[in-house]
Amino acid sequence: MRYVIGVDLGGTNIVAGAVAEDGSAIVGLASEPTRVEDGADGVIGRILSLAGGAIQELAGETAGRPDVVGVGVGAPGPLNRATGVVRVAPNLGWRDVPLRDRISEGLGIPASLDNDANCAVLGEWWQGAGRGVDPLVGITVGTGIGGGIVIDGQLYHGAADVAGEFGHMTIDPTGRRCACGNYGCLEAYASGPAIARRAAEGIAAGYETRLGEMVDGDLDRISAQTVYDAARIGDVYAQEIVRETAGFLGAGIANLVNIFNPSRVLVMGGVTGAGEELFKPLRAEVTRRAFRPAVDVCEILPGELVGMAGVYGAACAFLQQLG
Amino acid sequence: MRYVIGVDLGGTNIVAGAVAEDGSAIVGLASEPTRVEDGADGVIGRILSLAGGAIQELAGETAGRPDVVGVGVGAPGPLNRATGVVRVAPNLGWRDVPLRDRISEGLGIPASLDNDANCAVLGEWWQGAGRGVDPLVGITVGTGIGGGIVIDGQLYHGAADVAGEFGHMTIDPTGRRCACGNYGCLEAYASGPAIARRAAEGIAAGYETRLGEMVDGDLDRISAQTVYDAARIGDVYAQEIVRETAGFLGAGIANLVNIFNPSRVLVMGGVTGAGEELFKPLRAEVTRRAFRPAVDVCEILPGELVGMAGVYGAACAFLQQLG
Repeated sequence: MRYVIGVDLGGTNIVAGAVAEDGSAIVGLASEPTRVEDGADGVIGRILSLAGGAIQELAGETAGRPDVVGVGVGAPGPLNRATGVVRVAPNLGWRDVPLRDRISEGLGIPASLDNDANCAVLGEWWQGAGRGVDPLVGITVGTGIGGGIVIDGQLYHGAADVAGEFGHMTIDPTGRRCACGNYGCLEAYASGPAIARRAAEGIAAGYETRLGEMVDGDLDRISAQTVYDAARIGDVYAQEIVRETAGFLGAGIANLVNIFNPSRVLVMGGVTGAGEELFKPLRAEVTRRAFRPAVDVCEILPGELVGMAGVYGAACAFLQQLG
Repeated sequence: MRYVIGVDLGGTNIVAGAVAEDGSAIVGLASEPTRVEDGADGVIGRILSLAGGAIQELAGETAGRPDVVGVGVGAPGPLNRATGVVRVAPNLGWRDVPLRDRISEGLGIPASLDNDANCAVLGEWWQGAGRGVDPLVGITVGTGIGGGIVIDGQLYHGAADVAGEFGHMTIDPTGRRCACGNYGCLEAYASGPAIARRAAEGIAAGYETRLGEMVDGDLDRISAQTVYDAARIGDVYAQEIVRETAGFLGAGIANLVNIFNPSRVLVMGGVTGAGEELFKPLRAEVTRRAFRPAVDVCEILPGELVGMAGVYGAACAFLQQLG
């Protein structure tokens, strides 16, 4: 069996593993903090060490003869797939880093580079909640909001490899300011930090909730996960924040349903931690807003490959491009 | 030279003509009012007569030996391309009309059926302002707002042939009610009737404008074209309505730019009558809102094949499917 190393480079963690080319196994899956403060050299060193560890573990399982054909890397964008360069990555503090070639030279095997959210969606299409589904749209909701589109079994990249920026969809033209400079972006309402911020604002405004005591009164420590946890134990205010989040995400996903008429929309990332508390009102909002014939053929589901979708997808992207 | 009959069926007019298979000529282009009140049989009869007229004119030009390989029909949707049935067309008052087979049998040649907005975009891709551009996104702004997407030289249809419903994108979650039942759809702000409605509302509220006198005081007669005409002769209020329209369309198009990262976005339909008065602030709004690397590679242009894009596109869709 041939293997591909899949690497998922995020602002917080790097995850890597050796993926069997038929997707049936993943060997040596491991994660390390990214520690962006070490600069590109430090981060690339850690990627090489994680990838090397996976190859070593694979060697142990294959009597010392691992057949590793290449490495697929998923990284924050915008990036250039043709040159393998990460153009700008605010989360990493990077600009014009030739990541693909650095990884390829470091490991001595061919490498490919694609956007991290694209990889997550492709991973779910290959081995997860979107297996074989076409067309498939995925939205990743975590620190930021991104997305990917699979059409005819291939990622759709657009003219400059930046298709799928679902987080910067305007859902309210005069709404909240987004870090990107625009007003009313979906990300300004429904990303993890935005969920936490909305929750904290309400507490400051006097809403009754147990959220404050859950962080020992330190409102800065409220995260989206705190909100989901509070909602699950019955905190009415936290449940309201989750429902509101479902409304914002629902408006954004309804737009994607109208635009792509996909067979399935996958919601991935930290927000899936809110479970049916989120998905039930989210589906209702999409049904209320989107075009009926498009809603009728579209399922909305959470991703399955929690923490691994990007690794699977980066490996799959390599196989599609160079395998 | 082989020819394909292209038919563009709209709620107001039917346009048809014989298109050379290399797109170099169009013969017997003609138009007739749809007159939906005659029912599907009456409308189909008129389509057959227009198509027959084009074939006859072609016969005249080819010494009585026209080589017509088929007929492509563009019609309002949702429709089913596989069965050739128009499922629901509120503008026509139709439900489950087997349009493709009726046309095919009536003319005795093969036929194809596709969505009218899809055809308009494909026509511009084939012979107009989007010639050879990939990926290409087009938005049609007239009585309604629709759209189409060309990827790798083919229309993208989605899972149930209803992709590209750009008019029902939510751009303001608590905004104006749309005829579709949703709130804050782009169509509720920027379609022709919505532009006229916004203008009339302002006049009722007391804004000073020459629009009223242009329709002899009958505000119901204000159309989007009246607004464009007034703006062109310097009416400040009408110019404000056009700028506002540019803002709404700009928000919607910025979303499409973020989502598709297209090489070009074409704006088609009646709204292009507003000219640079519209396009200049529209481009500014997209630049302000959309993701920079996507904006940098994307031109925003009006369609070129005014009144003929749908005919060219319907013929092209036939050639791609059955030619």
